[in-house]
Amino acid sequence: MGVEIERKFLVVNQDFKQQGQGTFLRQGYICSDPGRIVRVRIEAERAMLTIKGLSTDISCSEWEYPIPLADAQILLDTVCQQPLIEKTRYRIPLAGLIWEVDEFIGDNLGLIVAEVELESEQQQFERPAWLGEEVSHDRRYANANLLKHPYKDWA
Amino acid sequence: MGVEIERKFLVVNQDFKQQGQGTFLRQGYICSDPGRIVRVRIEAERAMLTIKGLSTDISCSEWEYPIPLADAQILLDTVCQQPLIEKTRYRIPLAGLIWEVDEFIGDNLGLIVAEVELESEQQQFERPAWLGEEVSHDRRYANANLLKHPYKDWA
Repeated sequence: MGVEIERKFLVVNQDFKQQGQGTFLRQGYICSDPGRIVRVRIEAERAMLTIKGLSTDISCSEWEYPIPLADAQILLDTVCQQPLIEKTRYRIPLAGLIWEVDEFIGDNLGLIVAEVELESEQQQFERPAWLGEEVSHDRRYANANLLKHPYKDWA
Repeated sequence: MGVEIERKFLVVNQDFKQQGQGTFLRQGYICSDPGRIVRVRIEAERAMLTIKGLSTDISCSEWEYPIPLADAQILLDTVCQQPLIEKTRYRIPLAGLIWEVDEFIGDNLGLIVAEVELESEQQQFERPAWLGEEVSHDRRYANANLLKHPYKDWA
């Protein structure tokens, strides 16, 4: 188990694409209740099962287990809630931290968010130029919520 | 992934205890929706995460992953739905098959069920003398249902 401390922001332009590589992610949720999240994710050829427990606004208990790719494909297609979440994730190193920028497609097309993992809730960090408003405390941006209330319906 | 074909029966006396050894099981459910079951189980010092997909009456898609014992203990205590299911499982070899007899405690005290895993839905098998009524088709006996409707409330 680890405790994740993450801050999440909107992204105001596409300049981040010059700063890091993108990989395609396909993920789904077997369970998306607050405090009981079970996620299946395929990134490139790597598959992972992740369990998330109760979270405060920006920290969350999390357990991750690698699983066979073939299992993940069947779990995504037959067990997970539909539709799946699909996005390209860019990993961008900046001033000793790694920013993960997710550009969504499908029902969440148009949404781009950036996350950074910190060691404490108070840790200072350098803001990239493309960083916009912080949405760490806005539950609508949680991927498990994007399932039920996709970005295309926010208007 | 495997497809499990199981038949489940009530048990009419305690003679089975002379035919096999018992180990204590503690298990809980992160998700217990039909078609989306995520179970955490500790048996002796071994911990397992199990996902079950949609099932017919007696067959079910199932994926099992071993996880660290310490993770399972925290998952059972902080993430799983409460109360947990606790039971002693006896493994009884008979005529080439293994019968698993579960004697429940806690909210399901008094309930004893026997399960056998078969290779096809038509496979014949020898009935042990302590075997009672078949309950394969009775959803009340599914462990995920015993959580919500424990045996003590059946009257």
